[in-house]
Amino acid sequence: MTQSSVPSAAVDPAARPTVRLRPAGKKKRPHFGSPWIYANEVQMTPEAKALDPGTPVRLETAEGAPLGCFLFNRHPLICARLISRDPDAVLDRDFFEARIRAAVELRDKLVGVPYYRLAHAEGDGLPGTVIDRYGDTLVLQVNTAGLDRLRPSLLEALDRVVAPQTVVLRNDNPARELEGLSTQVEVVKGTVDGPVELVENGARFQADPGEGQKTGWFYDQRANRAFVAGLSKGARVLDCYAFAGGFTVQAALAGAKQVTAVDRSKDALELARKSAALNGVADVCRFEKREVFQDLAARAQAGERYDVVVVDPPAFVKSKKDYWQGIKGYRKMTRLAAPLVAPGGILAVCSCSHHVEPDTFADQIRRGLGQAGRDGRILRFAGADVDHPVHPWLPETSYLKCQVLALD
Amino acid sequence: MTQSSVPSAAVDPAARPTVRLRPAGKKKRPHFGSPWIYANEVQMTPEAKALDPGTPVRLETAEGAPLGCFLFNRHPLICARLISRDPDAVLDRDFFEARIRAAVELRDKLVGVPYYRLAHAEGDGLPGTVIDRYGDTLVLQVNTAGLDRLRPSLLEALDRVVAPQTVVLRNDNPARELEGLSTQVEVVKGTVDGPVELVENGARFQADPGEGQKTGWFYDQRANRAFVAGLSKGARVLDCYAFAGGFTVQAALAGAKQVTAVDRSKDALELARKSAALNGVADVCRFEKREVFQDLAARAQAGERYDVVVVDPPAFVKSKKDYWQGIKGYRKMTRLAAPLVAPGGILAVCSCSHHVEPDTFADQIRRGLGQAGRDGRILRFAGADVDHPVHPWLPETSYLKCQVLALD
Repeated sequence: MTQSSVPSAAVDPAARPTVRLRPAGKKKRPHFGSPWIYANEVQMTPEAKALDPGTPVRLETAEGAPLGCFLFNRHPLICARLISRDPDAVLDRDFFEARIRAAVELRDKLVGVPYYRLAHAEGDGLPGTVIDRYGDTLVLQVNTAGLDRLRPSLLEALDRVVAPQTVVLRNDNPARELEGLSTQVEVVKGTVDGPVELVENGARFQADPGEGQKTGWFYDQRANRAFVAGLSKGARVLDCYAFAGGFTVQAALAGAKQVTAVDRSKDALELARKSAALNGVADVCRFEKREVFQDLAARAQAGERYDVVVVDPPAFVKSKKDYWQGIKGYRKMTRLAAPLVAPGGILAVCSCSHHVEPDTFADQIRRGLGQAGRDGRILRFAGADVDHPVHPWLPETSYLKCQVLALD
Repeated sequence: MTQSSVPSAAVDPAARPTVRLRPAGKKKRPHFGSPWIYANEVQMTPEAKALDPGTPVRLETAEGAPLGCFLFNRHPLICARLISRDPDAVLDRDFFEARIRAAVELRDKLVGVPYYRLAHAEGDGLPGTVIDRYGDTLVLQVNTAGLDRLRPSLLEALDRVVAPQTVVLRNDNPARELEGLSTQVEVVKGTVDGPVELVENGARFQADPGEGQKTGWFYDQRANRAFVAGLSKGARVLDCYAFAGGFTVQAALAGAKQVTAVDRSKDALELARKSAALNGVADVCRFEKREVFQDLAARAQAGERYDVVVVDPPAFVKSKKDYWQGIKGYRKMTRLAAPLVAPGGILAVCSCSHHVEPDTFADQIRRGLGQAGRDGRILRFAGADVDHPVHPWLPETSYLKCQVLALD
């Protein structure tokens, strides 16, 4: 593991350089609030340019009013990220311990079992850093140079508050490259030996934090899965992009008559199958390895009907250039899924694309429904669950959208 | 009760007049979807003008393509409201029975107890008409001429599906005047003798459907109340605009140490007090008749702190002309409420203003927090509960917003 040392400016405020904003032009940004500062907003002096990526700085307005302590990196578009409103904050183990403790207390109250997103980046005061918890196993993604350099203190704080047996760094996110960081997956504490177990809404699951997608499980859908499960008693359910079986197993446990899980990944379906068995619902679940768009069309052709259809795809819009193509994907997906919903049935359509606004997503869904000749009503339009808090000044980081409709 | 007869065009499609849209100009609206047609979109011929308000018509595009059966009224801005995609639908008792039955089945599944919004206007295929259910008592608001004229069939359908003992028409909404309808409150079946009882999230309440605000209870906050209650164990709670005690009593039942309910209405507080007693939590609840803005400032002055603060005011923006003044009200309310939240505590800020978009509301909250010098995270940003479904083409009818934050 290559890692530069903790910068002295982290624990010694006297050694902390000052970076100033450019004078506010006509288009003022409300600097009293946002924890993100863009590169074109700061005075990029030779001194600022010379700072090591991730250096804690004292950020000031052009007039010299203090804005707080920010982690500075001249390379990415977001060049400074708030770590404390106190410009003199000492960024040591105690500092992180307070943040982690607050985050854990909130989850313990809100989720109740030790399986959750323990920290959700700026929403928990940890810039660009997410931590998922599977009991005694923690999986971290550290996506900013600032936090990467403060990682020793962060890990010590986690040891103090949670005392994990295993810690995995899933630092293979391409966002790290923009920060000038290397990408790799490392186990920095304990050992990873196959899937871990987790509990969600009373169901047991297997997830693989060392392999597969992201940190191994998408806790963000917890509340949406509970909602859909609540509508699944006695139902025939089709779960598209089933991944590790979150919707599938919970619908089955809630009394679904039959659940068909479709995914293109054999490995994901294998995990889903194991989880179905763990919960004693393997007999009502089927797992089919298919491409979803083709599969939806084929099922419609065959005249299949379901009481509940879930489509929870990977992001169609991964970057701004995919925008128009991607949003049309949500329309098409809805158009293909709607015919499979029996009259009075439920359709849940999801998007985890950061770039797609809720209104735009809703618009694509209604157009898809229109093209399919179906009417209905929106019962729920929700985002990620409570362990994915959003900073008030960063509404754009609220990426998940799940719209649940009852169709006529 | 004055009421014109059921139009023959309702039950006899052969007698149904045709109204056509104007040719689509540059600014095309996607007519395949929206259930609302505006007055400037139709060909307002002498024949159309001569139609009695609320007449069912066959609506067609300028080219003669059928769009369905709409209820037509030349007076209001929304001059035609979709009642069925089938232009020849027979709008009789059976027609409404199917709609009511679908609405009730959905609620029975989603809410589980017979206390809910039974029908939410276009979301349940009943234009401009809401029905709240308190067990055997139904409270209707019929805000369109079209449904007003079809009321006998609607009431018969309700008798068949729900067999209510009491039916109240809360037809005192000013929206009726725009439709050319009279405003009054009438009991059309059974008798109303004081408050009715309802159950929400396991708590018992008294509501007064014949008096007070709207239909007597705001079921729309059910899920938000449950969420806040879940954060209230052992907490000191301040419930501002407490009305009939929804948040107050549920927080107390969830184990709050102390709940202070503030409202300007003596009658509302009296109901809240009764409900607290009904649930055996009167000893932890206090009821204080105050003006909320002044009260918030006074409590801050006195240095009071609470673990949970709820502010759920009546609409600040009642019409478009109130817009700028009203949205600033949400900012000010947040600025006044935030200082009362203890570090790590919860602030729930609500708005039921139709005219205020969620993004705008969120922006006022973050500015209010900024002015109060408080940081935090958004745990939940939700609308009305599931018995208030939204038509996919009418996102603007999704009026309720409740943002719950954990403050630093």
